[in-house]
Amino acid sequence: MVSNICVKKFGGTSVGSTERIEAVADRILKEREKDSRPYVIVASAMAGETNRLVDLANRTYLGFRGPAYDMLLASGEQVSIALLSMALEKKGLKAKPYLAHQVGIKTDSMYSRARIKEIKTEPLMKDIQSGIIPVVAGFQGVDEFDNITTLGRGGSDTSAVALAVALKAQDCEIYTDVPGVFSADPRIVPKAKKIPSLCFEEMVEMASLGSKVLHIRSVEIAAKFQLKLQVRSTFEMTEGTWIMNENELNTSMESPLVTAITHDTQTAIFKLVPLPQGAEVLAQLFARLSEKGIVVDVISQSEIDQGQRLAFSVPVEDIIQTKQVISEFFPKVDTTVLDQVSKVSIVGVGMRNHPGVAAKFFNVLAQNKVPIHLVTTSEIKVSAIIDRKDLEKSAQALHSAFGLD
Amino acid sequence: MVSNICVKKFGGTSVGSTERIEAVADRILKEREKDSRPYVIVASAMAGETNRLVDLANRTYLGFRGPAYDMLLASGEQVSIALLSMALEKKGLKAKPYLAHQVGIKTDSMYSRARIKEIKTEPLMKDIQSGIIPVVAGFQGVDEFDNITTLGRGGSDTSAVALAVALKAQDCEIYTDVPGVFSADPRIVPKAKKIPSLCFEEMVEMASLGSKVLHIRSVEIAAKFQLKLQVRSTFEMTEGTWIMNENELNTSMESPLVTAITHDTQTAIFKLVPLPQGAEVLAQLFARLSEKGIVVDVISQSEIDQGQRLAFSVPVEDIIQTKQVISEFFPKVDTTVLDQVSKVSIVGVGMRNHPGVAAKFFNVLAQNKVPIHLVTTSEIKVSAIIDRKDLEKSAQALHSAFGLD
Repeated sequence: MVSNICVKKFGGTSVGSTERIEAVADRILKEREKDSRPYVIVASAMAGETNRLVDLANRTYLGFRGPAYDMLLASGEQVSIALLSMALEKKGLKAKPYLAHQVGIKTDSMYSRARIKEIKTEPLMKDIQSGIIPVVAGFQGVDEFDNITTLGRGGSDTSAVALAVALKAQDCEIYTDVPGVFSADPRIVPKAKKIPSLCFEEMVEMASLGSKVLHIRSVEIAAKFQLKLQVRSTFEMTEGTWIMNENELNTSMESPLVTAITHDTQTAIFKLVPLPQGAEVLAQLFARLSEKGIVVDVISQSEIDQGQRLAFSVPVEDIIQTKQVISEFFPKVDTTVLDQVSKVSIVGVGMRNHPGVAAKFFNVLAQNKVPIHLVTTSEIKVSAIIDRKDLEKSAQALHSAFGLD
Repeated sequence: MVSNICVKKFGGTSVGSTERIEAVADRILKEREKDSRPYVIVASAMAGETNRLVDLANRTYLGFRGPAYDMLLASGEQVSIALLSMALEKKGLKAKPYLAHQVGIKTDSMYSRARIKEIKTEPLMKDIQSGIIPVVAGFQGVDEFDNITTLGRGGSDTSAVALAVALKAQDCEIYTDVPGVFSADPRIVPKAKKIPSLCFEEMVEMASLGSKVLHIRSVEIAAKFQLKLQVRSTFEMTEGTWIMNENELNTSMESPLVTAITHDTQTAIFKLVPLPQGAEVLAQLFARLSEKGIVVDVISQSEIDQGQRLAFSVPVEDIIQTKQVISEFFPKVDTTVLDQVSKVSIVGVGMRNHPGVAAKFFNVLAQNKVPIHLVTTSEIKVSAIIDRKDLEKSAQALHSAFGLD
C-alpha cells in the first residue's frame, strides 16, 4: 500500500550556505501551504564541504579507506541536516534531524561505496504522526558493526529514493539547481529544452552516459520499485521533469525517436596493436582491469595479419592504473592513449522499433566531418567516442537532426 | 581495581591542522616506544572549528538550543577523531575512531550542557585487548532518546576524565599547548613558573577563578574518584603538572602558603543603592537571576539610612540579562555597572592554618595603591575585584610577595 508521504531531497548547492538553507526552509514552507502530505527531507552536505573533508583526509593519509574515512565524510551531512532543521524550526515548522544510525539505514561494510540493505521506518513514522518533519542525512548508512558507512559520490539521491521506497512514499522529489532534466547540457547545446517526462530506462542510460543530474543507483532503485521521481528546481516554483514507468508516460502522442543527447568528457581510449591472437588473452586482460576496479566501457577488436587490434575506453581517472596493467601483460605492445576525446550519445526508448536511427546518427556526424574512434549501441542508445574538439558541433547537430531544438 | 590504561586527551590547538594531527600521532608513537601501557585517546575539535559551527548556527537561528544544535557542534570532534585515527594508522599503529554513541557515553538531556551519567566500556576494552588504540570524540554524549548531546565548552576534559574513571585508568594526561599549570598567567606575570604538582582542591578553585587550563567539572570528577591528572605539553617531551590528592603530594617540605595567582577579566560589578530593607528582597532578586542562568559570584551588602546598599559581580556575558532583571524589580533604583574590572585571587591549601594570609594580601594591594571593589575568601583562597588597569601590577606584586617568583 502506498502512503501519501512525499520525500524531498536537497542537493549540495541547494544547501550551500546559511542563506540557501533558509531559502530551502522557505520553499518547504511554501510547498506545505498548498500540500498537506507529510514530508520527509533528505539533504546532502553543503556544496564544497565533502571536497574539503576529502582534502583533509588526503593530507593526513593519502589513499586510506576504512571506517575512519567514512566517518570523516559523513560529518558533512550532519552539519547540513542540523542547520536545515534549525531553519525549519525558525519558520515555525517542527523538524528533527536524523543521522543514518538514528533512522536505522543499514548497509553492507563496503566503506566509501556501501549499499543499503534495509531501512527501519519506525522512528520516522512516529515523528510524521506527530507532525514533525524528519530531516535525514543523505549519503550515509551504518553497518552491522555500528560503523558509519558512505554510499559513494552522489549517494544522497540513493538515500532519498531508498527512504521513499521504505516509507512506501507516493513520490520522491529531487531538488537541484536546474529546473529539470534537459534534452542536452545547455552549456554545450544552447537550444536544449527541459524534458517534461521520461522513463526509468532512459534516465539510467543517461546517467551511465555522463548525465550528472541523478546518481545512477537511485534511478535503478526507483525503477525496481516503480517509484515516480521528479527532478525540479529548488529556487523556482515550477514543475520539473518526471521520471516514471514507460507505460505511464503519455502515449497518446507519437513518442519521439530520441529523448536526449548526453555527453561525457571524462573518457579516454587505449589502442593496442598488435596483440597475440585469441579471445583468451583479452579475457585475461579485462579480468585484471576489472580486479583493479577499472570499468571498461566501449570495446572494439579486429583480426589483423600480425594477430589482433584492440581499442577500449576507460574513465580518465583510471588512465594511470590501466597503463600499469597493460605494461604488465604486454610490455612490448605498441600502446596509444587518446585522452582528448569525448563520448556523445543519443538516448530514447522511441528508437527501439526504428532500425534507421543509428544510420542517421552516423550520417549526421559524417556530414559534419566528425571522425569516430569507437562506437557502441544498445536497444535505446547509440554512442560514439569522438575528438573533444568536435563535441559541441556534434551535439548541436544531433540535437537539431533528431528534432529536439 | 585500577587497570594500567592511560587516557590521553588532546585539545583543539593540538589537533588544529593536519600537520599538528600528524605531530600528535608522532608523539603517541614516541610515548608508545617507552611505555607499553594501553592507551585510550580523547580529542577535541580542531581549533576554530567549534567557533565556525556556532557561527553557522547563529546565522541560521540565533539563540536556538536543542538536539539539532548539539548534533551540529558534535560534528567537529567527528572530524578530528577520524583524522587522528588515520594519522595513527599511517604511523603503523592500529586505531579506531569512536563517537559517543558508539562507545556508549550516556548523558542526561540537558542539551549544550549535558552531564555524563554512565559510560559503557565493553567496546573499548575489546579493542584494547586486540592492541587497537581507541580514539574517542570528546565533548559529546548520547541521551536516552538516542540524540547527540554536548557537554558545554571545554567538555572534552570532562570526557577524558570520565572515560578514565570508567576504565579504572591509572592516570589521565591532558595534552595542551602549554607545558603545565603555571603559578600565574605568564602573559601577565612574566616570572610565573610551572607548578610541579598541586592538589585537586587548588585546581578546582583556580578553574573557578579564571584559570582556563582545565574544565572545572573534569577536576571535580577527578577529585571525586581520586584520579591523578597530568597537564603537559603536546609538543615538548617534558613532565607536566600533576594534580592529585592532597595527602599524596610531597609533604616532607613545608608547603607554600600560596600555590598560584589566578585572574579573571570577564567579570563585571553591579552596584544598587538604595534598596528596600530586609533579606527577602535580596532573596527574590537572586532567585530570579538564578532562574535566568546567571551565576552571581561575589556579593556585598550593607545597611544604610535609606535601606540597604548592594553590590555583586556577574560574568561579563550576562550584563544585559542582569540589567533586565534589575529593571523589572527595581525600576527606580540607582544602578551602576562597572565593566572595566578584573578579579585577582591567591589560591593555596597552605593558607588553611595561616590566618595572616588575607591581611598580607590586602597589604600588598594597599602598598601598590590598588583600590578594592569587592572581596571574597574561602579556606584556600582570597579574591578581590579591582580595576582592570591595576591587574598586572597587582598580580606581579602578589606573585613576588608570596614567594612565587
